[in-house]
Amino acid sequence: MCMVMTVAVAGASGYAGGELLRLFTAHPEFTVGAITANTSAGSTLGSHHPHLVQLADKVIQPTTPEVLAGHDVVALALPHGASGEIAGELPAGTLVLDCGADHRLADPVAWKQFYGTEHPGSWPYGLPELIRADGGKQRQALLNTRRVAVPGCNVTAVTLALAPGLAAGVVEPEDIVAVLANGPSGAGRSLKTPLLASEIMGAASPYGVGGGHRHVPEIEQNLALAAGAPVSLSFTPTLVPMSRGILATVTAKLTSTFTGELDGTASAGVRNAWDDAYADEPFVHLLPEGQWPTTAATLGANTAHVQVTVDERAGRLVAVAAIDNLTKGTAGQAVQCANIAFGLPEMSGLPMTGVAP
Amino acid sequence: MCMVMTVAVAGASGYAGGELLRLFTAHPEFTVGAITANTSAGSTLGSHHPHLVQLADKVIQPTTPEVLAGHDVVALALPHGASGEIAGELPAGTLVLDCGADHRLADPVAWKQFYGTEHPGSWPYGLPELIRADGGKQRQALLNTRRVAVPGCNVTAVTLALAPGLAAGVVEPEDIVAVLANGPSGAGRSLKTPLLASEIMGAASPYGVGGGHRHVPEIEQNLALAAGAPVSLSFTPTLVPMSRGILATVTAKLTSTFTGELDGTASAGVRNAWDDAYADEPFVHLLPEGQWPTTAATLGANTAHVQVTVDERAGRLVAVAAIDNLTKGTAGQAVQCANIAFGLPEMSGLPMTGVAP
Amino acid sequence: MCMVMTVAVAGASGYAGGELLRLFTAHPEFTVGAITANTSAGSTLGSHHPHLVQLADKVIQPTTPEVLAGHDVVALALPHGASGEIAGELPAGTLVLDCGADHRLADPVAWKQFYGTEHPGSWPYGLPELIRADGGKQRQALLNTRRVAVPGCNVTAVTLALAPGLAAGVVEPEDIVAVLANGPSGAGRSLKTPLLASEIMGAASPYGVGGGHRHVPEIEQNLALAAGAPVSLSFTPTLVPMSRGILATVTAKLTSTFTGELDGTASAGVRNAWDDAYADEPFVHLLPEGQWPTTAATLGANTAHVQVTVDERAGRLVAVAAIDNLTKGTAGQAVQCANIAFGLPEMSGLPMTGVAP
Amino acid sequence: MCMVMTVAVAGASGYAGGELLRLFTAHPEFTVGAITANTSAGSTLGSHHPHLVQLADKVIQPTTPEVLAGHDVVALALPHGASGEIAGELPAGTLVLDCGADHRLADPVAWKQFYGTEHPGSWPYGLPELIRADGGKQRQALLNTRRVAVPGCNVTAVTLALAPGLAAGVVEPEDIVAVLANGPSGAGRSLKTPLLASEIMGAASPYGVGGGHRHVPEIEQNLALAAGAPVSLSFTPTLVPMSRGILATVTAKLTSTFTGELDGTASAGVRNAWDDAYADEPFVHLLPEGQWPTTAATLGANTAHVQVTVDERAGRLVAVAAIDNLTKGTAGQAVQCANIAFGLPEMSGLPMTGVAP
Repeated sequence: MCMVMTVAVAGASGYAGGELLRLFTAHPEFTVGAITANTSAGSTLGSHHPHLVQLADKVIQPTTPEVLAGHDVVALALPHGASGEIAGELPAGTLVLDCGADHRLADPVAWKQFYGTEHPGSWPYGLPELIRADGGKQRQALLNTRRVAVPGCNVTAVTLALAPGLAAGVVEPEDIVAVLANGPSGAGRSLKTPLLASEIMGAASPYGVGGGHRHVPEIEQNLALAAGAPVSLSFTPTLVPMSRGILATVTAKLTSTFTGELDGTASAGVRNAWDDAYADEPFVHLLPEGQWPTTAATLGANTAHVQVTVDERAGRLVAVAAIDNLTKGTAGQAVQCANIAFGLPEMSGLPMTGVAP
Repeated sequence: MCMVMTVAVAGASGYAGGELLRLFTAHPEFTVGAITANTSAGSTLGSHHPHLVQLADKVIQPTTPEVLAGHDVVALALPHGASGEIAGELPAGTLVLDCGADHRLADPVAWKQFYGTEHPGSWPYGLPELIRADGGKQRQALLNTRRVAVPGCNVTAVTLALAPGLAAGVVEPEDIVAVLANGPSGAGRSLKTPLLASEIMGAASPYGVGGGHRHVPEIEQNLALAAGAPVSLSFTPTLVPMSRGILATVTAKLTSTFTGELDGTASAGVRNAWDDAYADEPFVHLLPEGQWPTTAATLGANTAHVQVTVDERAGRLVAVAAIDNLTKGTAGQAVQCANIAFGLPEMSGLPMTGVAP
Repeated sequence: MCMVMTVAVAGASGYAGGELLRLFTAHPEFTVGAITANTSAGSTLGSHHPHLVQLADKVIQPTTPEVLAGHDVVALALPHGASGEIAGELPAGTLVLDCGADHRLADPVAWKQFYGTEHPGSWPYGLPELIRADGGKQRQALLNTRRVAVPGCNVTAVTLALAPGLAAGVVEPEDIVAVLANGPSGAGRSLKTPLLASEIMGAASPYGVGGGHRHVPEIEQNLALAAGAPVSLSFTPTLVPMSRGILATVTAKLTSTFTGELDGTASAGVRNAWDDAYADEPFVHLLPEGQWPTTAATLGANTAHVQVTVDERAGRLVAVAAIDNLTKGTAGQAVQCANIAFGLPEMSGLPMTGVAP
Repeated sequence: MCMVMTVAVAGASGYAGGELLRLFTAHPEFTVGAITANTSAGSTLGSHHPHLVQLADKVIQPTTPEVLAGHDVVALALPHGASGEIAGELPAGTLVLDCGADHRLADPVAWKQFYGTEHPGSWPYGLPELIRADGGKQRQALLNTRRVAVPGCNVTAVTLALAPGLAAGVVEPEDIVAVLANGPSGAGRSLKTPLLASEIMGAASPYGVGGGHRHVPEIEQNLALAAGAPVSLSFTPTLVPMSRGILATVTAKLTSTFTGELDGTASAGVRNAWDDAYADEPFVHLLPEGQWPTTAATLGANTAHVQVTVDERAGRLVAVAAIDNLTKGTAGQAVQCANIAFGLPEMSGLPMTGVAP
């Protein structure tokens, strides 16, 4: 493709907006057009995101359909509700990447239960590596699409950790338990006391405990696709003192086939499910046996690092995934989906290497 | 008691040793005598622990039975094996607080499996608030004892989180899942690459995954006492960037009695088990409903903060406990046990208030 | 003194208020009475400060003279202006500890220049260890007082670092340079974007650069008292990712007397000034030569750790002080002043030992 | 240039080595050949640097002239002494990028004084933006060179902050004071107690205080080139809890020309010196007036963010620079020098955008 395309970013002053701009600025096929944010309209981007030096003097405009019009891509990093509304006014030929939740859930009942409003309808779901029970991948649904519901960050981590085991029948769909360590940037640039530095440094604390977190139905939707059956999930995210990063520790019961094998060789058999699912995936890395993921290795990269083992004593499999919540968890995944939608190389413009240490 | 007792601390240059000295220095009934550490013998304590200003000029001696002799209390903050050896040479009348693992496990088979050596025998286990299936507490076993096996830090957190639910029949003993966020001070002052600041800041990563962590049989031992039946446990600790602190997220399946009740009132019924177990405990605080523990609130204090809820969607209970791994998780618990063993007020000399923010 | 006194704390939901409550709760001579905070009135203290378990159920009242009346001590942790106003309505016999800035500056011109309002008058200044040019200490001014202007946190660190050198004529009063590393809790529990965890973790950045910070005239006031002459000061605080702590690095030019001596023995001569000033001070510790302060050693303690050396190449002395901004920098210093004002032992109720690591 | 060049990296298992590999992997004109490290020879790179997924299976070789031979570029991330030795055995036509100190100092006396060994001779110094008193830049010395002494990280930050003011006669060369906030990755992947996570998290502490730090003569060398006269410098680095990043706060006395102007317009005049020096520099960003650098904005980028102001009260200028110590402070600067040496576009392969928040 020799014509550079233009992208507008709405919600540019927030963390997800900043990450979209960081990635699109470095992408050889895109150039950044309008950047918008209602409360910061009129200020320069550099006053909000000093790291984006190449766009520092660009002035933020208000988020309106008129400002967003005329771009090849519009990326929305807005609260749910807001993004649904603005998306409705964009042309059908524009690729809309919605980083909000509005169009992720296919089930109107689940939407109503967790969001309390009328179901805004669902869009092609932007997790390309999601493996289904029939072995197909979600990537197919994104070819040539002009609407993408970009997944939630926790959802991406839990799904990538466990889906291969469900699709291969290694683990039971019932009674999955996921506990996550989360950096606070996933909660956005919000002025809330629990997000203050003094509250978070030196502290670990859970939130959204007991099944009420809005990522629960979205994870269940993905894992049910992988299992080909409904799943049940206990899900607890935990705020820890790092700006970015999600470490998802997911356990599930081995199916009887595999429990029967517990003779020391089981682990290798189990491992095949992940190996098969991710061997050709550029962004998902199954680590060498015995090496466990660290979020630091994914900082700023569109990668997910995954490891899996069997706990014979407990009869459970443990799968762990590490991602950067703003990159593979949000903005990087959005860019990856744009690459797929436009038929570009999927890795185009996306960092493979984390910034560590 | 009007006579101040003397305490010797072995392993004084490490983190657990430093915490023992911090607490005993502030304790009105004790005075610090010999402090020992083999590799640092001859140096001043202040060069290792500049926070211990009152003992800064004290010179570290070698860890020998002769140096430790003649104290009312000897606290051992040594690697397992080392503490077992030295303890054997101390008089029966001396209160020995072993912060190592040597004497924690009652089951020789479990010891052999996880430690690979001959079972060194077990001592009264120093987790006073551990509730048994018959409603009794472990505190009883500590009255007048002169030997205490101080529990592991992860073990304390997981046990305090879940034991009441097992003792009251709220949750099943099978298929417990615990995932922890851990500060690296729990791993000691060891020169290992994964413990370097540059590796840990900005990173979350699991360790000891898959059932091989040595705290597993110790947790199972405690929870089996609470349940009155064997338990099975999936246990995953996770290093996160905070110096101190453990947040244990523990889930277990509700027993049929309680699953039947899932009509919105279940949670209150469930909560009673924890309320009953901890209402009279000075150091374990069941938080008001809806408020979740944060490790920051326990920093430097001998407290455990606990919360519990029911996830009706998942059919699982979620119990969370936060402690300071060096205080309630190690040295504070040791002091608490010393208070009990000598018939002192249990709270004597122990901080109740965390240093937050 | 055998009668326990009562203390009221205004601004109880903030960080300084919380620290006052932490310390007064553990103080044997005081009991906590009313706790107030305008925006949080009606809520429990535990919902703001879960670490203060002993006061968790106490209900916050509005900050009014009526609520604060009838206590032996009223500690004000309020923004400047607010504390000046409320203090005017408290009885002369009540000990008022003002942790705000209102009554710190003696010079009305400096007040007007930095605060922009009419000078509210000055109170006895609460930095007991401040040494004057005549060798006297500020402690004297606090005996039996019922009004204390508690110093700013940065001010305490810089003053304790350098004052002995000025009083002893070791360094010139002109051209002092101070650069500080600061934890964000010193900026209070304020909902401002630069104080969010995601902004501060992984980041160091200066603020109040160029002489405009309101702590400048206060430091100059102290150092001029020490020098017996006006001083000039370049002062730059820097936000770094730790919740609490101030490390002040202060340099000043050696006077000709000492520059002449630069033959390797100078440092010992220089050191005497600090040794003499602090040898009898319980809270200020001049570290052994070659050991430099770390803020971690003072966490939660009312201590200041100080070190000094001569840079012969540069012709400058370097003095470094570490404190906990909320303890020795604010609330601990307030309690220390209360002890002095009431003739209690100065160390009563104050932690000497930091919580490290 | 259509032929891709090969680069070998010695010291590949350390932090600087890892950063060199991260950058060269993403560079369109280079491909990574041999990677070496003596103690880790035989292991895979992925076991040391899990973030470098594209090189994960590459096996580390021993650091010998034979292994390093045959590459267009050899980058040395070795301790001083080691790099000097190996460099002597590489062909003259190979571009050698020495990230160690061996060839940085032109003055044999300074070398002997700070390193204690015979002077190994100096190479072209790799700080392209260093401005000299005659207005020239160091970049000229790097064209077509095949040997580069890559500057120290602290040195880069202090030099970039202050050199324009010295070159323009805005500040005096005497009595410069620099205090730095430093992430511990600058100290390398060394197993030393003060670099453990538990020691550094929650702590700020200075090191190398009093003029003995080996970066002092190197900074003085640079600033003397800028001033056209000898300089004197007080230099204090401070470890703070962030993995990467240096914030250098540098103050110097205004020359009489500028002190005379102190009427509110001085700052604009002063600012011109920095504006002129850096307007055409791609990697050095003078921020808009009033916006101060934060290290977070440079994380992983080859950028330096700079700001400057005048403190009229103190008669001093304050200049602040933020860099990533591993990128612009080490490996990025090395790559930048390689670009210059080979006549490639200077920005080729180098990240302009930090990973924030």
